Amino acid sequence: MTRIVLDAMGGDLAPQATVAGAVEAARDGITVVLVGVEEQIRAELDRVEGPTPNIEVVHAPEVVAMGDHDARATLRRRDTSIAVGIELIREGAGDAFISAGNTGAVLAVSLVRLGRLPGVERPAIGILLPMPRGVLLFLDGGANADARPSHLLQWAVLGASYMRTTRGLAEPEVALLNIGGEATKGSQVTVEAHALLAASGLNFIGNVEGRDLPSRPADVVVTDGFTGNTVLKFAEGLSSMLFEELREAASQSLRARIGGLLIRREARRMRDRLDYRVYGAAPLLGLQGTVYIGHGSSDARAIANAIRTADGAAAAGIVDALRAAAAEGEQAAS
Amino acid sequence: MTRIVLDAMGGDLAPQATVAGAVEAARDGITVVLVGVEEQIRAELDRVEGPTPNIEVVHAPEVVAMGDHDARATLRRRDTSIAVGIELIREGAGDAFISAGNTGAVLAVSLVRLGRLPGVERPAIGILLPMPRGVLLFLDGGANADARPSHLLQWAVLGASYMRTTRGLAEPEVALLNIGGEATKGSQVTVEAHALLAASGLNFIGNVEGRDLPSRPADVVVTDGFTGNTVLKFAEGLSSMLFEELREAASQSLRARIGGLLIRREARRMRDRLDYRVYGAAPLLGLQGTVYIGHGSSDARAIANAIRTADGAAAAGIVDALRAAAAEGEQAAS
Repeated sequence: MTRIVLDAMGGDLAPQATVAGAVEAARDGITVVLVGVEEQIRAELDRVEGPTPNIEVVHAPEVVAMGDHDARATLRRRDTSIAVGIELIREGAGDAFISAGNTGAVLAVSLVRLGRLPGVERPAIGILLPMPRGVLLFLDGGANADARPSHLLQWAVLGASYMRTTRGLAEPEVALLNIGGEATKGSQVTVEAHALLAASGLNFIGNVEGRDLPSRPADVVVTDGFTGNTVLKFAEGLSSMLFEELREAASQSLRARIGGLLIRREARRMRDRLDYRVYGAAPLLGLQGTVYIGHGSSDARAIANAIRTADGAAAAGIVDALRAAAAEGEQAAS
Repeated sequence: MTRIVLDAMGGDLAPQATVAGAVEAARDGITVVLVGVEEQIRAELDRVEGPTPNIEVVHAPEVVAMGDHDARATLRRRDTSIAVGIELIREGAGDAFISAGNTGAVLAVSLVRLGRLPGVERPAIGILLPMPRGVLLFLDGGANADARPSHLLQWAVLGASYMRTTRGLAEPEVALLNIGGEATKGSQVTVEAHALLAASGLNFIGNVEGRDLPSRPADVVVTDGFTGNTVLKFAEGLSSMLFEELREAASQSLRARIGGLLIRREARRMRDRLDYRVYGAAPLLGLQGTVYIGHGSSDARAIANAIRTADGAAAAGIVDALRAAAAEGEQAAS
């Protein structure tokens, strides 16, 4: 039995969305520990209709604000929902911690309190992207603005292990995001990373380009956190813009308006299928513990799915699998 | 009167698409010099119905293949359509050169034969992106896989000058693509570039993120060629995927099928408005001459629009404007 620790105060819609999402997942049989201002959490729980089984509450009086960028100050505050939640994981009182709150704070506290896995220089954010052909693990999603070739190799090792452990893939395919197909193409970092990946024991299929991503060219695609974060945010902006323009197109004549109404249900279903909320949160890979970061605008559905995602990974023994993979990767590299 | 030199052999659909596009633009009154294998060009011209005024042909017996990545060998070949076309520009026998052929070859030949503008370390590909709120100049589109902060500053200077000269904007707004809004956020390169841009005389509005791009947050957005190229190719892939999924959604029920048919015309018009072919080609900024690079899959419409875009810029005196801006930027920086 796993216990998932949730930052009840994290995200733009907390604590309403976090408590509602936790109740939804807990009703599936997952034990959820809500960490945050107890009074507020209890008030939200009281509003829920029907029973709320499998829910525990741990009080944490302080909250890290979404706009707080002072990581050093955050690290000194031991009573925030993030610090208390991470501490529960560290003590073994929980199997995974999820927060849709301040990403920088979650990163900083996790790194300092849990520490890195041996063989990992920098943890990365692994984004689970729902694609028409299945889920793609894309990393780094933005934990590191600069990346060295060795980081990209380590993220590939962690990503492959994550997909092997959580999705049952025997030999996950790994690709490098680059701006050309040949091994000699790209930036200094990607050219060196290509060589490291080709010499690793991974199932490395080579470079892929931005245009290949939506067709899910591999199980895992690695890139630096600057490019990864930019691509993800651009995907958000571009799909919003295209759907907005389609809505606009569907208002330009009576004919188009009727067409828009007739196709609306299927278009929405399509959009939902490709929505980030399908997985709800992104694993932080490379830590001595299981931590997931949710989107700041997570609603109850996203939170419930994040809990299910973290629960599945924890039940599959993700930390031990990642630890073994990182140690093996380190040995292979040395 | 301007004369636009077109690589008749460049692109996947050449010489059919290049000759047809040239004829279309030439009928508007633009003089077009077609460079390439004369026999093939004449054969295409013979197929055109109606008159073909304002067209000249210059013979170049050789062609650089699209898949040829040996820039050094390309530079030795003086008889290719790219080399002959660039030479016409250098001699002043043409005001702008356009090629939808091998981008690496066009870059290498332009750089060596035309040379850089004083004050410019590396030329950049300036992508003219049609957006719902107007055209955005996004650079570097991929000429340089690695960028230094000084390069980003120079591209901002060139980009602002391009928009000022060709679009009549008095003080074009310039932004830096980054992964956070604050000046201290981002990679080492973007943090330093932010400081340079803030201290420049440009109308610098600060950092923008990937999600802001589709809403055209500025007139000019600068980034390194790796990120720029990845974002552009990803935009291609993602929009194809979304339209493909919408088509699929519109086949899932009779109701949706009828809806799809009714809205098709408006959806296509919307897609066309945001199509790269609206401008047809991307200026190479920072050279002693006007060179445009077209998409490898350019059709006749894209080629005709590329000729119109290059003609407009040449008529506005783009090279002199860029030279003056680069010199001024150099003085301000020193």
